[in-house]
Amino acid sequence: MKFCSQCGSIVSHTIPNGDNIPRYVCNQCETIHYQNPKIITGTIPEWNDKILLCKRAIEPRHGLWTLPAGFMENSETTIEGALRESMEEAHAQLNNLSLFCVFSIPHISQVYMIYRGELIDGKARPGSETLSLDLFSEADIPWDELAFPVINETLKLYFKDKAAGRFLTHSGDIIRSNDQIIVSHY
Amino acid sequence: MKFCSQCGSIVSHTIPNGDNIPRYVCNQCETIHYQNPKIITGTIPEWNDKILLCKRAIEPRHGLWTLPAGFMENSETTIEGALRESMEEAHAQLNNLSLFCVFSIPHISQVYMIYRGELIDGKARPGSETLSLDLFSEADIPWDELAFPVINETLKLYFKDKAAGRFLTHSGDIIRSNDQIIVSHY
Repeated sequence: MKFCSQCGSIVSHTIPNGDNIPRYVCNQCETIHYQNPKIITGTIPEWNDKILLCKRAIEPRHGLWTLPAGFMENSETTIEGALRESMEEAHAQLNNLSLFCVFSIPHISQVYMIYRGELIDGKARPGSETLSLDLFSEADIPWDELAFPVINETLKLYFKDKAAGRFLTHSGDIIRSNDQIIVSHY
Repeated sequence: MKFCSQCGSIVSHTIPNGDNIPRYVCNQCETIHYQNPKIITGTIPEWNDKILLCKRAIEPRHGLWTLPAGFMENSETTIEGALRESMEEAHAQLNNLSLFCVFSIPHISQVYMIYRGELIDGKARPGSETLSLDLFSEADIPWDELAFPVINETLKLYFKDKAAGRFLTHSGDIIRSNDQIIVSHY
Protein backbone atom coordinates (compact mmCIF):
# COMPACT_ATOMS: atom_id res chain seq x y z
CA MET A 1 0.00 0.00 0.00
CA LYS A 2 1.48 3.33 -1.12
CA PHE A 3 -1.46 5.75 -1.40
CA CYS A 4 -4.52 6.61 0.71
CA SER A 5 -7.68 5.12 -0.81
CA GLN A 6 -9.71 8.02 0.65
CA CYS A 7 -7.71 11.07 -0.52
CA GLY A 8 -4.93 9.73 -2.80
CA SER A 9 -2.05 11.14 -0.69
CA ILE A 10 1.07 9.16 0.31
CA VAL A 11 0.72 6.82 3.31
CA SER A 12 3.32 6.02 5.98
CA HIS A 13 3.75 2.67 7.73
CA THR A 14 3.71 3.69 11.38
CA ILE A 15 2.20 2.86 14.77
CA PRO A 16 -0.81 5.15 15.36
CA ASN A 17 -1.34 6.78 18.78
CA GLY A 18 -2.92 4.33 21.20
CA ASP A 19 -2.09 1.35 19.00
CA ASN A 20 0.80 -1.13 19.14
CA ILE A 21 0.90 -2.47 15.57
CA PRO A 22 2.23 -0.60 12.50
CA ARG A 23 -0.56 0.46 10.11
CA TYR A 24 -0.72 2.35 6.84
CA VAL A 25 -1.70 5.89 7.88
CA CYS A 26 -2.41 8.75 5.46
CA ASN A 27 0.06 11.63 5.80
CA GLN A 28 -2.67 14.07 4.72
CA CYS A 29 -6.13 13.01 6.00
CA GLU A 30 -4.77 10.69 8.74
CA THR A 31 -7.08 7.80 7.81
CA ILE A 32 -5.79 4.54 9.31
CA HIS A 33 -5.98 1.66 6.81
CA TYR A 34 -6.42 -1.57 8.78
CA GLN A 35 -5.60 -4.88 7.12
CA ASN A 36 -7.14 -8.06 8.51
CA PRO A 37 -7.21 -11.81 7.85
CA LYS A 38 -9.49 -13.21 5.18
CA ILE A 39 -11.92 -16.10 5.50
CA ILE A 40 -11.89 -19.00 3.04
CA THR A 41 -15.23 -20.79 3.20
CA GLY A 42 -16.04 -24.12 1.55
CA THR A 43 -17.63 -27.53 1.71
CA ILE A 44 -17.05 -31.26 1.89
CA PRO A 45 -19.81 -32.44 -0.49
CA GLU A 46 -20.91 -35.95 0.55
CA TRP A 47 -22.64 -38.48 -1.66
CA ASN A 48 -23.25 -42.04 -0.47
CA ASP A 49 -19.88 -43.14 0.85
CA LYS A 50 -17.87 -40.63 -1.20
CA ILE A 51 -16.86 -36.99 -1.22
CA LEU A 52 -16.40 -34.55 -4.09
CA LEU A 53 -12.98 -33.10 -4.93
CA CYS A 54 -12.10 -30.59 -7.66
CA LYS A 55 -8.91 -30.45 -9.75
CA ARG A 56 -7.77 -26.82 -9.83
CA ALA A 57 -7.74 -24.99 -13.18
CA ILE A 58 -6.07 -21.93 -11.62
CA GLU A 59 -2.85 -21.02 -9.80
CA PRO A 60 -1.67 -21.58 -7.17
CA ARG A 61 -1.55 -25.39 -7.30
CA HIS A 62 -2.94 -25.76 -10.82
CA GLY A 63 -3.78 -29.42 -11.48
CA LEU A 64 -3.96 -30.44 -7.81
CA TRP A 65 -7.08 -31.55 -5.94
CA THR A 66 -9.05 -29.46 -3.47
CA LEU A 67 -12.44 -29.01 -1.82
CA PRO A 68 -14.79 -26.37 -3.28
CA ALA A 69 -13.80 -23.23 -1.32
CA GLY A 70 -12.91 -19.58 -1.79
CA PHE A 71 -12.81 -16.11 -0.29
CA MET A 72 -15.91 -15.13 1.68
CA GLU A 73 -17.53 -11.97 0.28
CA ASN A 74 -18.92 -8.96 2.13
CA SER A 75 -22.65 -9.14 2.98
CA GLU A 76 -22.88 -12.93 2.96
CA THR A 77 -22.84 -15.53 5.73
CA THR A 78 -20.13 -18.19 5.90
CA ILE A 79 -22.66 -20.82 4.78
CA GLU A 80 -23.87 -18.67 1.88
CA GLY A 81 -20.24 -18.26 0.83
CA ALA A 82 -19.60 -21.99 1.10
CA LEU A 83 -22.68 -22.75 -1.03
CA ARG A 84 -21.74 -20.07 -3.58
CA GLU A 85 -18.21 -21.46 -3.96
CA SER A 86 -19.57 -25.01 -4.33
CA MET A 87 -21.83 -23.77 -7.12
CA GLU A 88 -19.10 -21.71 -8.84
CA GLU A 89 -16.41 -24.40 -8.74
CA ALA A 90 -18.48 -27.56 -9.12
CA HIS A 91 -22.10 -26.62 -9.98
CA ALA A 92 -22.82 -28.52 -6.76
CA GLN A 93 -25.88 -27.93 -4.58
CA LEU A 94 -25.77 -29.09 -0.98
CA ASN A 95 -28.26 -29.79 1.81
CA ASN A 96 -27.98 -30.04 5.58
CA LEU A 97 -24.72 -28.18 6.08
CA SER A 98 -22.93 -28.30 9.40
CA LEU A 99 -19.65 -26.68 10.44
CA PHE A 100 -16.87 -29.27 10.32
CA CYS A 101 -13.63 -27.35 10.93
CA VAL A 102 -12.03 -23.96 11.44
CA PHE A 103 -8.27 -23.63 10.75
CA SER A 104 -6.14 -20.51 11.24
CA ILE A 105 -3.20 -20.19 8.85
CA PRO A 106 -1.35 -17.16 10.25
CA HIS A 107 1.57 -17.03 7.78
CA ILE A 108 -0.90 -16.20 5.03
CA SER A 109 -3.44 -14.43 7.29
CA GLN A 110 -6.28 -16.76 6.36
CA VAL A 111 -8.94 -18.62 8.33
CA TYR A 112 -10.55 -21.65 6.67
CA MET A 113 -14.13 -22.63 7.56
CA ILE A 114 -15.32 -25.90 6.01
CA TYR A 115 -18.86 -27.31 6.19
CA ARG A 116 -19.98 -30.89 5.59
CA GLY A 117 -23.09 -31.23 3.47
CA GLU A 118 -25.08 -33.63 1.34
CA LEU A 119 -24.48 -33.29 -2.41
CA ILE A 120 -28.00 -33.12 -3.84
CA ASP A 121 -28.62 -36.01 -6.26
CA GLY A 122 -24.84 -36.58 -6.42
CA LYS A 123 -24.72 -34.03 -9.26
CA ALA A 124 -21.69 -31.88 -10.10
CA ARG A 125 -19.78 -30.58 -13.13
CA PRO A 126 -16.67 -28.41 -13.38
CA GLY A 127 -16.93 -24.62 -13.07
CA SER A 128 -14.50 -22.27 -14.80
CA GLU A 129 -11.84 -22.64 -12.09
CA THR A 130 -12.01 -26.44 -12.15
CA LEU A 131 -10.34 -28.77 -14.70
CA SER A 132 -12.28 -31.86 -13.63
CA LEU A 133 -13.96 -33.31 -10.57
CA ASP A 134 -14.79 -36.69 -9.12
CA LEU A 135 -16.33 -38.49 -6.16
CA PHE A 136 -13.73 -40.26 -4.02
CA SER A 137 -14.02 -42.96 -1.39
CA GLU A 138 -11.43 -42.85 1.39
CA ALA A 139 -9.26 -45.48 -0.32
CA ASP A 140 -9.09 -43.40 -3.49
CA ILE A 141 -8.25 -39.94 -2.07
CA PRO A 142 -5.18 -38.62 -3.97
CA TRP A 143 -3.32 -37.76 -0.75
CA ASP A 144 -0.11 -36.78 -2.55
CA GLU A 145 -1.90 -34.56 -5.02
CA LEU A 146 -3.93 -32.37 -2.65
CA ALA A 147 -3.51 -28.64 -3.22
CA PHE A 148 -2.91 -27.33 0.33
CA PRO A 149 -1.95 -28.68 3.78
CA VAL A 150 -5.30 -27.46 5.15
CA ILE A 151 -7.07 -29.80 2.70
CA ASN A 152 -4.98 -32.77 3.91
CA GLU A 153 -5.77 -31.93 7.54
CA THR A 154 -9.47 -31.45 6.87
CA LEU A 155 -9.76 -34.77 5.03
CA LYS A 156 -7.72 -36.65 7.68
CA LEU A 157 -10.09 -35.36 10.37
CA TYR A 158 -13.10 -36.13 8.21
CA PHE A 159 -12.22 -39.80 7.71
CA LYS A 160 -11.17 -40.16 11.34
CA ASP A 161 -14.60 -38.90 12.44
CA LYS A 162 -16.32 -41.06 9.84
CA ALA A 163 -14.56 -44.15 11.18
CA ALA A 164 -15.62 -43.16 14.69
CA GLY A 165 -19.24 -43.01 13.56
CA ARG A 166 -19.76 -39.35 14.57
CA PHE A 167 -18.69 -35.93 13.32
CA LEU A 168 -17.41 -33.19 15.64
CA THR A 169 -16.65 -29.52 14.94
CA HIS A 170 -12.88 -29.14 14.93
CA SER A 171 -10.62 -26.13 15.27
CA GLY A 172 -6.90 -25.72 15.01
CA ASP A 173 -3.92 -23.92 13.49
CA ILE A 174 -1.63 -24.67 10.57
CA ILE A 175 1.73 -23.01 11.23
CA ARG A 176 4.67 -22.79 8.84
CA SER A 177 7.94 -22.82 10.74
CA ASN A 178 11.37 -23.36 9.09
CA ASP A 179 9.60 -24.75 6.04
CA GLN A 180 7.82 -27.34 8.19
CA ILE A 181 4.06 -27.42 8.58
CA ILE A 182 2.95 -27.80 12.19
CA VAL A 183 -0.69 -28.62 12.86
CA SER A 184 -2.28 -28.13 16.27
CA HIS A 185 -5.81 -29.01 17.33
CA TYR A 186 -7.82 -27.64 20.23
CA MET B 1 -12.75 3.98 -1.68
CA LYS B 2 -11.85 6.70 -4.20
CA PHE B 3 -8.16 6.18 -5.05
CA CYS B 4 -5.93 3.19 -5.89
CA SER B 5 -3.73 2.29 -2.92
CA GLN B 6 -1.05 1.00 -5.36
CA CYS B 7 -0.69 3.92 -7.78
CA GLY B 8 -2.88 6.76 -6.42
CA SER B 9 -5.11 7.01 -9.52
CA ILE B 10 -8.92 7.20 -9.47
CA VAL B 11 -10.82 3.89 -9.05
CA SER B 12 -14.14 2.87 -10.60
CA HIS B 13 -16.77 0.64 -8.99
CA THR B 14 -17.33 -1.96 -11.68
CA ILE B 15 -17.63 -5.70 -12.31
CA PRO B 16 -14.23 -7.01 -13.51
CA ASN B 17 -14.04 -9.49 -16.41
CA GLY B 18 -14.82 -13.01 -15.22
CA ASP B 19 -16.31 -11.76 -11.95
CA ASN B 20 -19.94 -11.17 -10.94
CA ILE B 21 -19.58 -8.70 -8.06
CA PRO B 22 -18.73 -4.98 -8.38
CA ARG B 23 -15.21 -4.19 -7.11
CA TYR B 24 -13.09 -1.08 -6.88
CA VAL B 25 -10.78 -1.29 -9.91
CA CYS B 26 -7.99 1.18 -10.72
CA ASN B 27 -8.56 3.11 -13.96
CA GLN B 28 -4.79 3.32 -14.50
CA CYS B 29 -2.99 0.19 -13.23
CA GLU B 30 -6.15 -2.03 -13.22
CA THR B 31 -5.50 -3.41 -9.72
CA ILE B 32 -8.68 -4.97 -8.32
CA HIS B 33 -9.24 -3.98 -4.67
CA TYR B 34 -11.17 -6.80 -2.98
CA GLN B 35 -13.01 -6.11 0.28
CA ASN B 36 -13.85 -9.01 2.56
CA PRO B 37 -15.55 -9.70 5.92
CA LYS B 38 -13.61 -9.19 9.13
CA ILE B 39 -13.27 -11.62 12.02
CA ILE B 40 -14.04 -10.57 15.60
CA THR B 41 -12.35 -12.99 17.99
CA GLY B 42 -12.91 -13.12 21.74
CA THR B 43 -13.48 -15.15 24.88
CA ILE B 44 -15.92 -16.18 27.55
CA PRO B 45 -13.59 -16.08 30.61
CA GLU B 46 -14.87 -18.59 33.20
CA TRP B 47 -14.10 -18.53 36.89
CA ASN B 48 -15.85 -20.90 39.29
CA ASP B 49 -19.51 -20.54 38.44
CA LYS B 50 -19.17 -17.09 36.88
CA ILE B 51 -18.06 -15.40 33.66
CA LEU B 52 -16.27 -12.12 33.07
CA LEU B 53 -17.98 -9.21 31.30
CA CYS B 54 -16.51 -5.80 30.44
CA LYS B 55 -18.33 -2.45 30.41
CA ARG B 56 -17.32 -0.65 27.20
CA ALA B 57 -15.36 2.62 27.48
CA ILE B 58 -15.60 3.21 23.70
CA GLU B 59 -18.23 3.71 21.02
CA PRO B 60 -20.29 2.04 19.75
CA ARG B 61 -22.33 1.00 22.80
CA HIS B 62 -20.31 2.97 25.36
CA GLY B 63 -21.35 1.91 28.88
CA LEU B 64 -22.88 -1.42 27.85
CA TRP B 65 -21.55 -4.89 28.73
CA THR B 66 -19.67 -7.21 26.41
CA LEU B 67 -17.26 -10.13 26.25
CA PRO B 68 -13.57 -9.36 25.64
CA ALA B 69 -13.34 -9.41 21.83
CA GLY B 70 -12.02 -7.43 18.89
CA PHE B 71 -10.75 -7.48 15.32
CA MET B 72 -8.40 -10.34 14.49
CA GLU B 73 -5.04 -9.08 13.20
CA ASN B 74 -2.95 -10.33 10.29
CA SER B 75 -0.34 -13.00 11.16
CA GLU B 76 -2.11 -14.27 14.27
CA THR B 77 -4.36 -17.29 14.88
CA THR B 78 -7.95 -16.85 16.06
CA ILE B 79 -6.95 -18.10 19.53
CA GLU B 80 -3.97 -15.74 19.69
CA GLY B 81 -6.30 -12.88 18.79
CA ALA B 82 -8.84 -13.96 21.40
CA LEU B 83 -6.12 -14.09 24.08
CA ARG B 84 -4.68 -10.73 22.98
CA GLU B 85 -8.08 -9.04 23.16
CA SER B 86 -8.71 -10.56 26.61
CA MET B 87 -5.41 -9.14 27.78
CA GLU B 88 -5.98 -5.70 26.19
CA GLU B 89 -9.54 -5.23 27.42
CA ALA B 90 -9.41 -7.00 30.78
CA HIS B 91 -5.77 -7.89 31.61
CA ALA B 92 -7.21 -11.42 31.68
CA GLN B 93 -5.14 -14.54 31.06
CA LEU B 94 -6.96 -17.72 30.07
CA ASN B 95 -6.22 -21.45 29.95
CA ASN B 96 -7.75 -24.39 28.11
CA LEU B 97 -9.54 -22.51 25.35
CA SER B 98 -12.07 -24.25 23.15
CA LEU B 99 -14.16 -22.89 20.30
CA PHE B 100 -17.68 -22.15 21.54
CA CYS B 101 -19.45 -20.36 18.68
CA VAL B 102 -19.13 -18.87 15.23
CA PHE B 103 -21.72 -16.28 14.14
CA SER B 104 -21.95 -14.58 10.75
CA ILE B 105 -23.38 -11.06 10.80
CA PRO B 106 -23.71 -10.25 7.09
CA HIS B 107 -25.21 -6.75 7.36
CA ILE B 108 -21.93 -5.57 8.90
CA SER B 109 -19.73 -8.14 7.10
CA GLN B 110 -18.36 -9.58 10.34
CA VAL B 111 -17.85 -13.13 11.63
CA TYR B 112 -17.60 -13.59 15.41
CA MET B 113 -15.55 -16.47 16.85
CA ILE B 114 -15.81 -16.88 20.62
CA TYR B 115 -13.80 -19.29 22.76
CA ARG B 116 -14.57 -20.52 26.27
CA GLY B 117 -11.58 -20.55 28.63
CA GLU B 118 -10.59 -20.65 32.27
CA LEU B 119 -9.72 -17.25 33.73
CA ILE B 120 -6.37 -17.88 35.45
CA ASP B 121 -6.62 -17.17 39.20
CA GLY B 122 -9.87 -15.28 38.53
CA LYS B 123 -7.77 -12.16 37.94
CA ALA B 124 -8.79 -9.24 35.73
CA ARG B 125 -8.69 -5.43 35.68
CA PRO B 126 -9.96 -2.94 33.10
CA GLY B 127 -7.88 -2.13 30.02
CA SER B 128 -8.05 1.25 28.28
CA GLU B 129 -11.22 0.35 26.31
CA THR B 130 -13.04 -0.89 29.44
CA LEU B 131 -14.77 1.27 32.07
CA SER B 132 -15.16 -1.55 34.60
CA LEU B 133 -15.54 -5.30 34.69
CA ASP B 134 -17.09 -7.95 36.88
CA LEU B 135 -17.72 -11.67 37.26
CA PHE B 136 -21.38 -12.59 36.75
CA SER B 137 -23.36 -15.68 37.62
CA GLU B 138 -26.24 -16.52 35.28
CA ALA B 139 -28.80 -14.87 37.57
CA ASP B 140 -26.87 -11.59 37.51
CA ILE B 141 -26.19 -11.21 33.76
CA PRO B 142 -27.35 -7.68 32.73
CA TRP B 143 -29.39 -9.01 29.80
CA ASP B 144 -30.89 -5.61 28.96
CA GLU B 145 -27.53 -3.86 29.02
CA LEU B 146 -25.53 -6.12 26.69
CA ALA B 147 -23.75 -4.28 23.89
CA PHE B 148 -24.64 -6.37 20.82
CA PRO B 149 -27.21 -9.04 19.80
CA VAL B 150 -24.33 -11.48 19.17
CA ILE B 151 -23.37 -11.19 22.86
CA ASN B 152 -26.94 -11.99 23.93
CA GLU B 153 -27.03 -15.03 21.64
CA THR B 154 -23.62 -16.27 22.76
CA LEU B 155 -24.52 -16.01 26.44
CA LYS B 156 -27.95 -17.63 25.94
CA LEU B 157 -26.26 -20.60 24.24
CA TYR B 158 -23.58 -20.69 26.93
CA PHE B 159 -26.01 -20.97 29.83
CA LYS B 160 -28.16 -23.45 27.90
CA ASP B 161 -25.15 -25.72 27.40
CA LYS B 162 -24.06 -25.20 31.00
CA ALA B 163 -27.49 -26.33 32.21
CA ALA B 164 -27.24 -29.38 29.94
CA GLY B 165 -23.92 -30.29 31.53
CA ARG B 166 -21.92 -30.21 28.25
CA PHE B 167 -20.62 -27.59 25.85
CA LEU B 168 -20.95 -27.90 22.06
CA THR B 169 -19.42 -25.81 19.28
CA HIS B 170 -22.23 -23.72 17.79
CA SER B 171 -22.57 -21.87 14.53
CA GLY B 172 -25.23 -19.59 13.18
CA ASP B 173 -26.20 -16.28 11.60
CA ILE B 174 -27.51 -13.02 12.98
CA ILE B 175 -29.53 -11.28 10.27
CA ARG B 176 -30.99 -7.78 10.41
CA SER B 177 -34.22 -7.60 8.42
CA ASN B 178 -36.69 -4.68 8.61
CA ASP B 179 -35.06 -3.60 11.89
CA GLN B 180 -35.65 -7.05 13.36
CA ILE B 181 -32.82 -9.34 14.40
CA ILE B 182 -33.28 -12.92 13.19
CA VAL B 183 -31.00 -15.59 14.64
CA SER B 184 -30.56 -18.97 12.99
CA HIS B 185 -28.54 -21.91 14.24
CA TYR B 186 -27.13 -24.81 12.29
